[in-house]
Amino acid sequence: YIMNGTGNLMDFLDEPFPDVGTYEDFHTIDWLREKSRDTDRHRKITTKSKESYWELIKSLLDAWSGWVVMLLIGMLTGTLAGVIDLAVDWMTDLKEGVCLSAFYYSHEQCCWTSNETTFDDRDKCPQWQKWAELMTGHSEGAGAYVLNYFLYVLWALLFSFLAVSLVRVFAPYACGSGIPEIKTILSGFIIRGYLGKWTLLIKTVTLVLAVSSGLSLGKEGPLVHVACCCGNLFCSLFSKYSKNEGKRREVLSAAAAAGVSVAFGAPIGGVLFSLEEVSYYFPLKTLWRSFFAALVAAFTLRAINPFGNSRLVLFYVEYHTPWYMAELVPFILLGVFGGLWGTLFIRGNIAWCRRRKTTLLGKYPVLEVIVITGITAVLAFPNPYTRRSTSELISELFNDCGALESSQLCDYVNNPNMSRPVDDIPDRPAGPGVYTALWQLALALIFKIVITIFTFGMKIPSGLFIPSMAVGAIAGRIVGIAVEQMAYHHHDWIIFKNWCRPGADCVTPGLYAMVGAAACLGGVTRMTVSLVVIMFELTGGLEYIVPLMAAAVTSKWVADAFGKEGIYESHIQLNGYPYLDVRDEFTHRTLATDVMRPRRSEPPLAVLTQDSTTVEDVETLIKDTDYNGFPVVVSRESERLIGFVQRRELTVAIKTARQKQDGVVSSSVVYFTEDNPQVAEACDPQPLKLRRILNLSPFTVTDHTPMETVVDIFRKLGLRQCLVTRSG
Amino acid sequence: YIMNGTGNLMDFLDEPFPDVGTYEDFHTIDWLREKSRDTDRHRKITTKSKESYWELIKSLLDAWSGWVVMLLIGMLTGTLAGVIDLAVDWMTDLKEGVCLSAFYYSHEQCCWTSNETTFDDRDKCPQWQKWAELMTGHSEGAGAYVLNYFLYVLWALLFSFLAVSLVRVFAPYACGSGIPEIKTILSGFIIRGYLGKWTLLIKTVTLVLAVSSGLSLGKEGPLVHVACCCGNLFCSLFSKYSKNEGKRREVLSAAAAAGVSVAFGAPIGGVLFSLEEVSYYFPLKTLWRSFFAALVAAFTLRAINPFGNSRLVLFYVEYHTPWYMAELVPFILLGVFGGLWGTLFIRGNIAWCRRRKTTLLGKYPVLEVIVITGITAVLAFPNPYTRRSTSELISELFNDCGALESSQLCDYVNNPNMSRPVDDIPDRPAGPGVYTALWQLALALIFKIVITIFTFGMKIPSGLFIPSMAVGAIAGRIVGIAVEQMAYHHHDWIIFKNWCRPGADCVTPGLYAMVGAAACLGGVTRMTVSLVVIMFELTGGLEYIVPLMAAAVTSKWVADAFGKEGIYESHIQLNGYPYLDVRDEFTHRTLATDVMRPRRSEPPLAVLTQDSTTVEDVETLIKDTDYNGFPVVVSRESERLIGFVQRRELTVAIKTARQKQDGVVSSSVVYFTEDNPQVAEACDPQPLKLRRILNLSPFTVTDHTPMETVVDIFRKLGLRQCLVTRSG
Repeated sequence: YIMNGTGNLMDFLDEPFPDVGTYEDFHTIDWLREKSRDTDRHRKITTKSKESYWELIKSLLDAWSGWVVMLLIGMLTGTLAGVIDLAVDWMTDLKEGVCLSAFYYSHEQCCWTSNETTFDDRDKCPQWQKWAELMTGHSEGAGAYVLNYFLYVLWALLFSFLAVSLVRVFAPYACGSGIPEIKTILSGFIIRGYLGKWTLLIKTVTLVLAVSSGLSLGKEGPLVHVACCCGNLFCSLFSKYSKNEGKRREVLSAAAAAGVSVAFGAPIGGVLFSLEEVSYYFPLKTLWRSFFAALVAAFTLRAINPFGNSRLVLFYVEYHTPWYMAELVPFILLGVFGGLWGTLFIRGNIAWCRRRKTTLLGKYPVLEVIVITGITAVLAFPNPYTRRSTSELISELFNDCGALESSQLCDYVNNPNMSRPVDDIPDRPAGPGVYTALWQLALALIFKIVITIFTFGMKIPSGLFIPSMAVGAIAGRIVGIAVEQMAYHHHDWIIFKNWCRPGADCVTPGLYAMVGAAACLGGVTRMTVSLVVIMFELTGGLEYIVPLMAAAVTSKWVADAFGKEGIYESHIQLNGYPYLDVRDEFTHRTLATDVMRPRRSEPPLAVLTQDSTTVEDVETLIKDTDYNGFPVVVSRESERLIGFVQRRELTVAIKTARQKQDGVVSSSVVYFTEDNPQVAEACDPQPLKLRRILNLSPFTVTDHTPMETVVDIFRKLGLRQCLVTRSG
Repeated sequence: YIMNGTGNLMDFLDEPFPDVGTYEDFHTIDWLREKSRDTDRHRKITTKSKESYWELIKSLLDAWSGWVVMLLIGMLTGTLAGVIDLAVDWMTDLKEGVCLSAFYYSHEQCCWTSNETTFDDRDKCPQWQKWAELMTGHSEGAGAYVLNYFLYVLWALLFSFLAVSLVRVFAPYACGSGIPEIKTILSGFIIRGYLGKWTLLIKTVTLVLAVSSGLSLGKEGPLVHVACCCGNLFCSLFSKYSKNEGKRREVLSAAAAAGVSVAFGAPIGGVLFSLEEVSYYFPLKTLWRSFFAALVAAFTLRAINPFGNSRLVLFYVEYHTPWYMAELVPFILLGVFGGLWGTLFIRGNIAWCRRRKTTLLGKYPVLEVIVITGITAVLAFPNPYTRRSTSELISELFNDCGALESSQLCDYVNNPNMSRPVDDIPDRPAGPGVYTALWQLALALIFKIVITIFTFGMKIPSGLFIPSMAVGAIAGRIVGIAVEQMAYHHHDWIIFKNWCRPGADCVTPGLYAMVGAAACLGGVTRMTVSLVVIMFELTGGLEYIVPLMAAAVTSKWVADAFGKEGIYESHIQLNGYPYLDVRDEFTHRTLATDVMRPRRSEPPLAVLTQDSTTVEDVETLIKDTDYNGFPVVVSRESERLIGFVQRRELTVAIKTARQKQDGVVSSSVVYFTEDNPQVAEACDPQPLKLRRILNLSPFTVTDHTPMETVVDIFRKLGLRQCLVTRSG
């Protein structure tokens, strides 16, 4: 039991108080204290391990527990991600039809098992029947279309109603993407239950429902939350992690990496995401363990193989054509678009969320979800690009048009007497299908932009990675096709002359879609390195890293010009969590003396003296103020600092003493000194010695310390409080 | 001009002293102070930028200068790496022969330009002549062999003599790998000239000579040093970086990333190497910029294309066969080997270096280099695997035996009636060539192990990445071939039954070589994430990351069991640099009061008082002690701390005052108070006011603070000193 921030008083302890050393809900932890508690624990184990073989084994188990936790987190996260993928796949298809051979098959699985299908009509197989066909026997015609339309909307409403009800009833913390809250928790804040078992269960189930309902949201952000819940779950198995909030946060950082790893199939990107975006305290040991957890998760997911192609994500791609310097211009334009989209989205979404909080709207979250789902489903069905799931859309937009591609986007006019290998198809004029697709994509773009702003922040699990990427991918594909056709029809222009001879394959519209997706994601989240690395792992080639980077940098600069905060920081601020951003620069020139409390006009600082305060005085002080702790000084006259005592521990100590220790009454003097006080007269009340709860090494700065230094100290050391002194 | 650590006294300044704010050689910088100086600079520019357009443009240029520096570093590093690669290639081949068509062609380039060659005999072309052939006309026979042998040794001796002489005469800092010193510099130490222009030039030239001489050393470590020199060079172009030691170190961290990026063709691995291995202070901004610099460097190198295959390194590989769970056993054994090698190397090398320092040996570095080169060349020539350059050896060992491979290592007994695609060759029995190769490899392994221990640390540029990887690759390839043959001949054994049917391609010896290389590198350097990521970028597939990781983890654990320190930390300790390792855990239970100076038995602390010390007293104090600074207290009787004054600034201030200020004599009183002292009598000497050099916000801890907290504060805030107080 360590009673104070730095554990230097362990020897003085005789009776442990209950509850000391834990934190209250919605309070901030003291990193230095957690760290020194862990060092003490470690030291104790090391000393003990020399005593017997059993203790040695226990100490080895303790040293290994970190790796075991990572292994378990990786495996559970990977499994959950696989299950979610499979369930989403099935339920998304359920909105359109059902598999006759087995109702739990998705469209694709249904047609796999059917032996009759050839490659060309793999989407059409007798076992898979749309609802209208199943119910009326007609698969064509207006009646069937309307029936399908109606059932699509109905299923969507059902799914989203279930999702929002489950969240409301069982786990209110399961809503949203969870990343803002996880950032806050990792920075040292305590939100009990946010990473609990119920949240894990409900979030997993409702995530499937929400994504399947066709709303404009993704599963990637919530997967990070799910992974962190797993992390928290396994922490409770080992006292090393469950009893130390600092160590627990190391595990959660690694869990976040595992979450991103399975969300994008990018283990290295996941670790960098955790490092860059969510984590606060990230020692090198955690880096290595995060990497391990991310890899285990990725391999578990691969073993489950939800997409049947041994890829971890639906939108993994491989390109075969290089890019040219001149293409950097459209790439940078896509970056500008991404930045503008990021600004628009953040401003629009925050304004809407604020409105939701302050007006009547927020009172009926179920109704809101139902209405938005209804609008989404009604508008989405007629357009083939919004009807399907968003990841499938992104996957199609990223794809290069190979020879066997049957998509409408690949409806180019083929040169009949052409015989080339599959991978090397020259640029061709666009066919009517491509032009239809362009119009539909443009409509889908506007629809996605508007609906996403209203969707993110509703009371269901909702991530914004996928919708943002979809917006960017649509815009990018449109630009890509435009550039391609321009290059085909005008290959005598100067800019095209050098790199785009007739009959050559010089523009890859899929690459434009990917660059656009990176730009839009960057604009919204302001990720940099991790974004590029995630995209790099999706394409698997160093070749395309420069376009991605150009777009990501441009998008970040454009978006930063309109406002420094990403969507997560904005939501943290909106919710009023205490978060000290590492990246904020402190530009004011103030000294500690200007910002410390109490201000000059306020009453003097509430202090305790080391040997002249009575129990009653202390109790009055606790009642009258709401400070979290009080400095202890030599005496009122000579206010030289001795130490700092926590309000919580003071309360507990006095209460316990009054109950258990004889002779402690209201007029007893509280002593914080080292020597035993000499009781002058026998009739005097028994003194109360409280040196053991006194933190003898409080953190101090002088009143002349500039605030930027103070902020730096708070950030780097993770302090809860800091005392300002002048000449001691 | 900011005179003190925290810049809070800028307003009080009237006359700037020269030299204040810089550091002496072999001193440590104060990170907090550098940071606050930069904040002040930034603030000034922001204020000014509102005044006029010209200032606005200047402020934008200032904001962009970071990116410009990164671009320049990337380009120069990439170019230098390309030039080094080309030069090494040419000079290594020069030891064997010369190209008749153009003497500056390497063997490979020479045979490219020759049109007659087919793929099979691409190593044999008439233009390329060995020395014996050129001089005597005979290419075969004992005489020619001896002549070639003799000239090989002669060239090697010439190259290494040139290298060591150049280092001795022009730039003594150019020797070694440089990474230990760079780690120390990045942690805040100052070694003037270590990253200077001369060092850059001489290191580049001598690196080429040293590698070409055939010594068992690599160019990878020194490339990091070269990149950091480039970084330092470009820092001097911008006052933002040249005048701030903290900002300069951010640039150097990025430069180190660029160095590794070109050394291994692994930009992400480079950034992680910089983060994990060399850097001390690595804010997120630096992460992004490092990534940029690393990418620019990689693309510059690719544009130069030194290996003619648009790969950045010689040993890039692609494997086609998956690995099986059972293979983890040999992989982990390779990990154990790597750990043992790491321990052996570090202990042997450190012992040898210590011997060199203390005995006569160190007095004749030129002779030492010559002797080692002679031994290396004499022993290396007869064995074909040690004769060639080490990177070529690694490249051959990593390679999978394709159908067209002509290497001796791929001399398998072919099944004549086999017609398979190139990539899918089943396991075959080994031919006589493979058995010869195995013996030669075993000899090469012993030779490399012994000679590398003596080579690293000589007075020439020498990296240990490549020799370590070579040791591991040889061991790995031997194990790989053994497993392959066992699987072929005993495919009815239980372990092989499941995954190694006859006629299947189930073991890739090249992968074993790569795993071995990773294990050995990990054992020596104790890298973890960055090692795996670098290897991942070399193979380009997520597939093989698990074997690499298993080997890296095992190797680290085994090596850590014998000693916690990697080779760089050991060399830092050997050279006595002040380096506070972030990873060291502080396990003793001491308080600040136990370790602070002066100890209880020593004379009391040397302090200055705020208003009663005379100039003479101060001068005596400076003369008598060698402390870097002195605390200032209220008075001798009441030793309450006011501030801290640096020795250097105190000396300068008194000197300047004596010269310029009238009436300052030895008996003048030095005042550190804020108010002007009242001069009581006219005959009194003029007081000297020195409050402006007083740091009013020194860092303090109480005497009860546990040492682990103090160490943590020093590490995280980068302090130079910390004052211990009791009750103020």
